Amino acid sequence: MKALVYRGLNTIKLEDKPKPEIQDPTDAIVKIKYTTICGSDLHILAGHVPTCKEGTTIGHEGMGTIDSIGDGVKSFKVGDKALISAISACSTCSNCKRGMLSHCDKAGWILGHTIDGTQAEYVRIRLADSSLHKVPDGIDEKAIVMLSDIVPTGYEVGVLAGQVKPGSTVAVVGVGPVGLGATLTAKLLSPSLLIAIDKDPARLEAAKKMGATHAIDSSKEDPEKIVKELTGGLGCDCVIEAVGVPATFELCQNLIAFGGTIANIGVHGAPAKLALDKLWGYNIAITMGFVNTTSTETLTRMFQAGTLKLDDMITHEYNLQKEGEQAYATFGAAAKHKALKMIINTEA
Amino acid sequence: MKALVYRGLNTIKLEDKPKPEIQDPTDAIVKIKYTTICGSDLHILAGHVPTCKEGTTIGHEGMGTIDSIGDGVKSFKVGDKALISAISACSTCSNCKRGMLSHCDKAGWILGHTIDGTQAEYVRIRLADSSLHKVPDGIDEKAIVMLSDIVPTGYEVGVLAGQVKPGSTVAVVGVGPVGLGATLTAKLLSPSLLIAIDKDPARLEAAKKMGATHAIDSSKEDPEKIVKELTGGLGCDCVIEAVGVPATFELCQNLIAFGGTIANIGVHGAPAKLALDKLWGYNIAITMGFVNTTSTETLTRMFQAGTLKLDDMITHEYNLQKEGEQAYATFGAAAKHKALKMIINTEA
Amino acid sequence: MKALVYRGLNTIKLEDKPKPEIQDPTDAIVKIKYTTICGSDLHILAGHVPTCKEGTTIGHEGMGTIDSIGDGVKSFKVGDKALISAISACSTCSNCKRGMLSHCDKAGWILGHTIDGTQAEYVRIRLADSSLHKVPDGIDEKAIVMLSDIVPTGYEVGVLAGQVKPGSTVAVVGVGPVGLGATLTAKLLSPSLLIAIDKDPARLEAAKKMGATHAIDSSKEDPEKIVKELTGGLGCDCVIEAVGVPATFELCQNLIAFGGTIANIGVHGAPAKLALDKLWGYNIAITMGFVNTTSTETLTRMFQAGTLKLDDMITHEYNLQKEGEQAYATFGAAAKHKALKMIINTEA
Amino acid sequence: MKALVYRGLNTIKLEDKPKPEIQDPTDAIVKIKYTTICGSDLHILAGHVPTCKEGTTIGHEGMGTIDSIGDGVKSFKVGDKALISAISACSTCSNCKRGMLSHCDKAGWILGHTIDGTQAEYVRIRLADSSLHKVPDGIDEKAIVMLSDIVPTGYEVGVLAGQVKPGSTVAVVGVGPVGLGATLTAKLLSPSLLIAIDKDPARLEAAKKMGATHAIDSSKEDPEKIVKELTGGLGCDCVIEAVGVPATFELCQNLIAFGGTIANIGVHGAPAKLALDKLWGYNIAITMGFVNTTSTETLTRMFQAGTLKLDDMITHEYNLQKEGEQAYATFGAAAKHKALKMIINTEA
Repeated sequence: MKALVYRGLNTIKLEDKPKPEIQDPTDAIVKIKYTTICGSDLHILAGHVPTCKEGTTIGHEGMGTIDSIGDGVKSFKVGDKALISAISACSTCSNCKRGMLSHCDKAGWILGHTIDGTQAEYVRIRLADSSLHKVPDGIDEKAIVMLSDIVPTGYEVGVLAGQVKPGSTVAVVGVGPVGLGATLTAKLLSPSLLIAIDKDPARLEAAKKMGATHAIDSSKEDPEKIVKELTGGLGCDCVIEAVGVPATFELCQNLIAFGGTIANIGVHGAPAKLALDKLWGYNIAITMGFVNTTSTETLTRMFQAGTLKLDDMITHEYNLQKEGEQAYATFGAAAKHKALKMIINTEA
Repeated sequence: MKALVYRGLNTIKLEDKPKPEIQDPTDAIVKIKYTTICGSDLHILAGHVPTCKEGTTIGHEGMGTIDSIGDGVKSFKVGDKALISAISACSTCSNCKRGMLSHCDKAGWILGHTIDGTQAEYVRIRLADSSLHKVPDGIDEKAIVMLSDIVPTGYEVGVLAGQVKPGSTVAVVGVGPVGLGATLTAKLLSPSLLIAIDKDPARLEAAKKMGATHAIDSSKEDPEKIVKELTGGLGCDCVIEAVGVPATFELCQNLIAFGGTIANIGVHGAPAKLALDKLWGYNIAITMGFVNTTSTETLTRMFQAGTLKLDDMITHEYNLQKEGEQAYATFGAAAKHKALKMIINTEA
Repeated sequence: MKALVYRGLNTIKLEDKPKPEIQDPTDAIVKIKYTTICGSDLHILAGHVPTCKEGTTIGHEGMGTIDSIGDGVKSFKVGDKALISAISACSTCSNCKRGMLSHCDKAGWILGHTIDGTQAEYVRIRLADSSLHKVPDGIDEKAIVMLSDIVPTGYEVGVLAGQVKPGSTVAVVGVGPVGLGATLTAKLLSPSLLIAIDKDPARLEAAKKMGATHAIDSSKEDPEKIVKELTGGLGCDCVIEAVGVPATFELCQNLIAFGGTIANIGVHGAPAKLALDKLWGYNIAITMGFVNTTSTETLTRMFQAGTLKLDDMITHEYNLQKEGEQAYATFGAAAKHKALKMIINTEA
Repeated sequence: MKALVYRGLNTIKLEDKPKPEIQDPTDAIVKIKYTTICGSDLHILAGHVPTCKEGTTIGHEGMGTIDSIGDGVKSFKVGDKALISAISACSTCSNCKRGMLSHCDKAGWILGHTIDGTQAEYVRIRLADSSLHKVPDGIDEKAIVMLSDIVPTGYEVGVLAGQVKPGSTVAVVGVGPVGLGATLTAKLLSPSLLIAIDKDPARLEAAKKMGATHAIDSSKEDPEKIVKELTGGLGCDCVIEAVGVPATFELCQNLIAFGGTIANIGVHGAPAKLALDKLWGYNIAITMGFVNTTSTETLTRMFQAGTLKLDDMITHEYNLQKEGEQAYATFGAAAKHKALKMIINTEA
């Protein structure tokens, strides 16, 4: 089969690999129909993820059909359509039992990281019962791929951890795909203000389409000044960081209201300064963490019910076998191509 | 009347002042019976609180009897015994309605800060209905003064914000009076581990008396190493910071388990480093804030029921009129005197 | 001034009464601009509320301007526009401190019940700081009257107590004004299903306009059968009772899913049967209670932001001085007149 | 092997049965060391559980060692000591993902009910990874059997559902083994009052030993009167029903305070009257449900840490092979024998 394989710094190659096989009774082999590229995949290419070894098939998002299955798998059978979760999990270790599937003792973020991933014609999914989700019939099979990672991440790590409630004032700092996932799902809770902050006009435009009430271009405007104006000087009840650099995390500290929550989604490569001298008495929380994909089933139900619209996230589509490397080229220059998420199909 | 008055850097003076009078229908004048000195009072003397002007009577803790009362006060009458809350609050502004009395639009921490405080024979309490608490008959009137500030602070900002639950593993970094308040009240929730960390053997001893299961002398032992041993390598579910310097806040980041909460109680004068590069994926929260004294009534009920023991906090007693300045001298050298909280009585 | 006065069984009279005066430093006199009639007012006329004495001015909803004010009131001044809360509260007693303003030791539901109410040109509001809410400039002053009682009631007692969350399946049994308040505010949380059940086609139509995804006419269809079909046999996560008779409460027990919540808003005059033999193992909660109006400020912000649309609730308008009694006649035959809420203005 | 087998109305027989075998890759066979009898087992004998067929081995509690294991089991190996949960669960269906293991689509309460149970020398445990718990070394292996069912039931369905918090006032109606489990674990949250109500002096004595602050013998005293006296007329914040008949459920309604929770643990065979006419405005919740055993791991850690004392629950011990039927005779006349829980060992 064909697979997109990490071959060292900034190198992704479309290669032939053997089709994966069941190794364990709880495994499933999924024939990929649609997959996509995540910002984390670019981090791997950039050499920021040393736990990902050369030769690994990249990708932790996608959907397809069950091709074969171990005899310990209870919830799926061959031919079922399945959504692949970015997080594989046993569901029975202490961390899983607490809902922290991302810190599963036996798995976690392994796909396209420590084992071969989804940017291929087939993928082996470990612990299939708790690492796959059912795909309802008649659903848009490209759009649902947004539920493999970015939308649950925006929702769980941004919106839910950030305690967004009806009437909340919310700012999202950085509206790339994950920040847009946060914007889209914050809207589900009817905030009174939902302010998107970014330097890319196309992303700000997308944020407004997905429900932002205001968009601030931080290359031209002062976010702190505008947020204070919009909130009567108070700042926001929830500030979501979706960039991952010290400057944006520190900006969040200037946007937060007394009693609010800064919900960090960004993947950081460096420490940041925490202004405890200013904030110690603010009665705030700062949260951070991996997605646990515990919301995936609910988000799927909402997508099916029409309460959640996902297709605006998709800007490009490529064919794995013919254009797999080109998809990376486009996504790697996302601003230039106004790229958000790109579907990679595997249809020959 | 006599009052302990802030007279500039490192200077506290016992002075004569006029007895305060009702200025507003919601005021009460309390005749102080017992008051005490807080770490914040030392911050004022050290010049760290520029909003406190020279000439202010210090102190925000105490109990006494209602001496006179405005005609808008509903819940107290002359002669009632009352506990004074460190936080004065209107209870009706937006912040108060959300339970954030410390950020009351009309008051907050004003006593012994922006208006005259409790280290005097009489004190004017603004917004008396929501700034005073009833003192049940027959209760230890010295011990209940611990509920003016330090015990609610440890409980609300440390234990409750820190999500301590039955079976939690808890570390308290710094067991001065507020850290001891956190230790004492964490015990109410039956943690499976309650680890006190300090450099002062007397304070560690007090922490063990108040329920700590383990005490680590960080001048001699490596807290990170011991906490990891005690928790099977996981770290603690809740780490409470009760010192207020960057080093201890940074230590907390090395003690926290996946899914845990770092609850900062410390009053910080400088920013600290937040290791987002390590912690971004830890699924943790970091909380910080002022006490709101919303737990005072419950803690009073527990004190009355015998479920909460407060008198171990008190190590010294002085008379305001005769020994007010000496009380400060002792508290200012707390380690030397093994001082935790000192009662100052006003009995002539 | 003119006032609508309860004069015994089924008798409401427009009478002359003296203008109320400040009696207490925490009082305010509000000149009513708009008021409205509640189902509870009909209960009074029907003799179901023996604590309401003949001669009482009816009404606990409305808005107007502050006409005079006691000197203990902090948050309002003469000329301010104010929304009147159905619940008067001290905000400082034990129940108020816990957010249970409806069980305030000093007040609660007193307006138009144990003291003169809002269906008059002027009303005395006790404990004004916590019993009135600010009305933002430029807001629809008729529509905001929906926030005096019915919408906070539907939201707090139905939606919040009922644990509605994004993706929830929700049924509202009875979509009179309070049930519509629940429907409208459930929508704020993006349920995947929001099913209105009633016998009145006009009310079902209103429910659909306010966001119900499905409407069941229980005079013609079997709600249990349809709810089971719509939910794949599971029943609903949240079932809201907004009628107040045993039959509808018992219907709710047949609509609830494992793990769900039955949120009772209805005011009941008789016990109901609780099918513990069926439900003991269902892992459900049943909630019931008075509105506390703790959500009023948030709902006002959402109304101001355009996130909450209230004017669809208003079907009729009358003038107090000329048509006060006629307003009751219309509301008393609500189905015939397709009446939901009727604004009563006091403009001469 | 020997097993205690249900043989129709009021008939339990010690019989020879074949040793169970692995049937599925997720099965484990446990060699029982200690088991015990539950009230539900008596319900089976009394014919109240028609889903339990004649010929079934009874019992859903116990501990032992892993004798053999399917190759899909990840968390246990042959020779490991394991605690058996009353609830078997897949941990991956929708209900399990929501923490409702008791409503697992694939299992739930099946042991000693729809499949052979634990009162035997060996038992087959389905879905072993999520239906067994590790037993720490050096722990009291008899006492830990209390964590198979009754203590998690009292804690989850009584104490946690009942929202017990530090300072709460709590009443437990019925202090048989499950009510004692609730009493013991309510104590972990430091209620200010913990009132046991029963007709059996021995059980009331046990409740006091396990932490009840007051005991009311309802055969001699009026519980409502005494609870009102103890709570200043307010009633209790949490009332736990642990009997399962209408009269005790109705008593709970007379003991509840405004804002409180009635947590029903009792297994009911008949509906009860719910006094909605009195309670509709009380701002209370009534909860009910099966144990999900989601607290078992935490309770085990607390037991290991010494924070939870379980051995007071055990009053008798019998040998399965020699005295299995006698154990039932004693437990069936529990009051006469002052029996709480009886350990049944399988040592030859």
